[in-house]
Amino acid sequence: MDNQITYNQINAEDIAILRSIVGEGDVLVGERISPDYAHDELGGIERMPDALVRVHTTEEVSAVMKHAWARSIPVTVRGSGTGLVGAAVPIEGGILLETTKMNQILSLDKSTLTVRVQPGVLLMELAAFAEENDFLYPPDPGEKSATIGGNISTNAGGMRAVKYGVTRDYVRSLTVVMPNGEILTLGATVAKNSSGYSLKDLVIGSEGTLCIICEAVLKLVPLPKFSQSLLVPFEDMKSAIEAVPHIIRSKIIPTAIEYMSRDTILFSEDYLGKKFPDTKNDAYILLTFDGNSEAQVEGDMSTVAELCLELGAIDAYIVDTEERKKAVWSARGAFLEAIKASTTEMDECDVVVPVDRVDAFIKFTHELAKEFGVRIPSFGHAGDGNLHVYICRDALSKEAWEQTLSACFDRMYQEASKLGGLVSGEHGIGYAKKEFLKQQYGETPIALMQGIKKTFDEKNILNPGKICF
Amino acid sequence: MDNQITYNQINAEDIAILRSIVGEGDVLVGERISPDYAHDELGGIERMPDALVRVHTTEEVSAVMKHAWARSIPVTVRGSGTGLVGAAVPIEGGILLETTKMNQILSLDKSTLTVRVQPGVLLMELAAFAEENDFLYPPDPGEKSATIGGNISTNAGGMRAVKYGVTRDYVRSLTVVMPNGEILTLGATVAKNSSGYSLKDLVIGSEGTLCIICEAVLKLVPLPKFSQSLLVPFEDMKSAIEAVPHIIRSKIIPTAIEYMSRDTILFSEDYLGKKFPDTKNDAYILLTFDGNSEAQVEGDMSTVAELCLELGAIDAYIVDTEERKKAVWSARGAFLEAIKASTTEMDECDVVVPVDRVDAFIKFTHELAKEFGVRIPSFGHAGDGNLHVYICRDALSKEAWEQTLSACFDRMYQEASKLGGLVSGEHGIGYAKKEFLKQQYGETPIALMQGIKKTFDEKNILNPGKICF
Repeated sequence: MDNQITYNQINAEDIAILRSIVGEGDVLVGERISPDYAHDELGGIERMPDALVRVHTTEEVSAVMKHAWARSIPVTVRGSGTGLVGAAVPIEGGILLETTKMNQILSLDKSTLTVRVQPGVLLMELAAFAEENDFLYPPDPGEKSATIGGNISTNAGGMRAVKYGVTRDYVRSLTVVMPNGEILTLGATVAKNSSGYSLKDLVIGSEGTLCIICEAVLKLVPLPKFSQSLLVPFEDMKSAIEAVPHIIRSKIIPTAIEYMSRDTILFSEDYLGKKFPDTKNDAYILLTFDGNSEAQVEGDMSTVAELCLELGAIDAYIVDTEERKKAVWSARGAFLEAIKASTTEMDECDVVVPVDRVDAFIKFTHELAKEFGVRIPSFGHAGDGNLHVYICRDALSKEAWEQTLSACFDRMYQEASKLGGLVSGEHGIGYAKKEFLKQQYGETPIALMQGIKKTFDEKNILNPGKICF
Repeated sequence: MDNQITYNQINAEDIAILRSIVGEGDVLVGERISPDYAHDELGGIERMPDALVRVHTTEEVSAVMKHAWARSIPVTVRGSGTGLVGAAVPIEGGILLETTKMNQILSLDKSTLTVRVQPGVLLMELAAFAEENDFLYPPDPGEKSATIGGNISTNAGGMRAVKYGVTRDYVRSLTVVMPNGEILTLGATVAKNSSGYSLKDLVIGSEGTLCIICEAVLKLVPLPKFSQSLLVPFEDMKSAIEAVPHIIRSKIIPTAIEYMSRDTILFSEDYLGKKFPDTKNDAYILLTFDGNSEAQVEGDMSTVAELCLELGAIDAYIVDTEERKKAVWSARGAFLEAIKASTTEMDECDVVVPVDRVDAFIKFTHELAKEFGVRIPSFGHAGDGNLHVYICRDALSKEAWEQTLSACFDRMYQEASKLGGLVSGEHGIGYAKKEFLKQQYGETPIALMQGIKKTFDEKNILNPGKICF
């Protein structure tokens, strides 16, 4: 910030106070903190917290923040630590506030089709709970062990965004703790809201920099009665991706349209030790269709299958047995881990582009890979334009890697911007992508974000050094 | 604001400069300005602008704002003037900037399912354009002659929100002019976005106080192939409204669920000079169902019809002829005007409550009407909890009316809050509802909104005196 705050170091008295708030066993310091808490899923950005504080209730979060505010101690919130941009790394030290013990699904309201949850509930737990009650929680990011608090903080999207939208579309209200400890409720359990600026929408996607999400009321939809997937192999990635805008123009809206390349599938086979139904072809799209009418779902699926075949698809497999479903979706879920396991180190680019520019962007990454002599595998959400692109270090020296990574990122983010896209579709900006955000947006939007941050957190104690500072 | 800005009066030189920007004929002053520009649809809050400026392009808006910023002249934006809370009334005088000449639908992109529009396009024009191209623009507020810019500025919801959500859910990007004249693009033609704080979502619903919307990219959906309505009479309002949560719990999602009382329908028959299909009963719910499978739509409709009959409905008419459709929906569209025509003066309360508390709120308004001896007719969106409640002056003296209105409003907004609702579902806060917003939210959320306003508009020249100041 302009006037750099001097943070206070945590001392023995602070620790005693924190322990009096959350209990002895849930304040860890020094070597009692696992080194895993110094980084997130992707690594690369590291800093150990001075204290790890595990909270159990909104009131505890409030008490911790009141103390931190009074003492000017930085606080960074962490859920499962599955992020990829360093948003949950306490780069200024201080308190790392872990929400995984606030993991209760508090209530299900069948009249308003909403569920009330604590932030540490895992996506997979919420998904299972919804299904058990014949509901669907539509947001479906690949990382099922992320917390809901984390999903809201990055406005995570996932695979079903083509039809159902993103996390933002399912958040009715948030109970939050402000940097100074005040507890607020933003939004309400209502379907419409025109009551002043939408502070709730400002907090969604703010990566823990404005306030701490302590409870959320989320919208559910009735579980569609039928769901089917279709796996469509193509000769090459260009033909596969070019089919997608045609599908969308046909006015059939699949639930999901994912793309994957043969090499990514092979990494995943290696990683999981499980066979994928087909690996003969270079490129695949995987589509899902859902609805309450079996005839409708099957009709849509066969219309799209025929369209794909007209557009040069080699085949179109219905993923109809439980075994095939498991094989296909477990592979899809393991792509990130599988690519990670295939190399020494990697970094990710999570751009989003207009859905008819996905082909152009993938082609660009292929050219870039050739030019720089690196592998740049990718997979992602062809149906909503959100790509997950990985630059792999493989055998590069540290210096060569850093230079290559920086040059490739510069070029990719410029290209995404040129194609009408944005820096991040769902993984956020955190610490790692700040410069690219600044390059894309220019001065005024960043200044507006800084003004907003100051309005919420005058002392800049909450997740300092992220997004816009 | 804290440090009250002294605005400059518009002088002859300002007028000359404004005319050089937008053309001689589009800057009006003094008696050349129709008195209609002093108020919005509901009236009550009045102030004539010092100059009416009709803009044609984003560049003109930018030039006007650069001048207004340099000279500290207040600017209020107005579309069709169909608002109900005084948001488009220039209460500090200055420039009233009218966007109705920026009324072009610029392009339709069938690959991204988006349409690019200027802010002065009317909702009915966009709806017709979408349908001609076999698409649906889902937001469907009753006032079809509102501009899209106005709809975005209040995050208008409308009748189809039960199934399709509100305006916010359909705004992909906005081109805006900042108070100082800078042109920015917020968001992009993409389906996912986690690229910093969502400034776009902050602008949606901000009622022209943060920046001026000059272009919008809006999402469309494929036009459902089948749509049917069902009119269900009940003996009384209590039974009608109590049926709604049961319908929702049945996991069938109608497109719309509206409620209406016999007296409102009679006003509308009077006003339109057209008969409604049935006026024998005290209360009605009107449901719509849509989808691509006729069997599915008819199945859902008959399931809901049977459920309603089990819950005490007197009948369930399918609104199947063109004549019936027209009669029912033109009546529904005329309720506001019809109630207005039935009284000397009225004011509106646009609360939103959880969908299973609608019954409690309507019951409360009936008790209030008895207690204060006034008529309080209402109608609205039973399926999403958004009520339009009207307090009618009828024969009351000015003084008695003002006292009654103020007392009834106080009680109604308190009750809405008690039921877990909010001040406004879709009409906004503007000037008229500021105090109720403050009462509901308390100090901190209002202070956050004020901080955001200052961040965007340090000089407070854009629509001053609205929402949070």
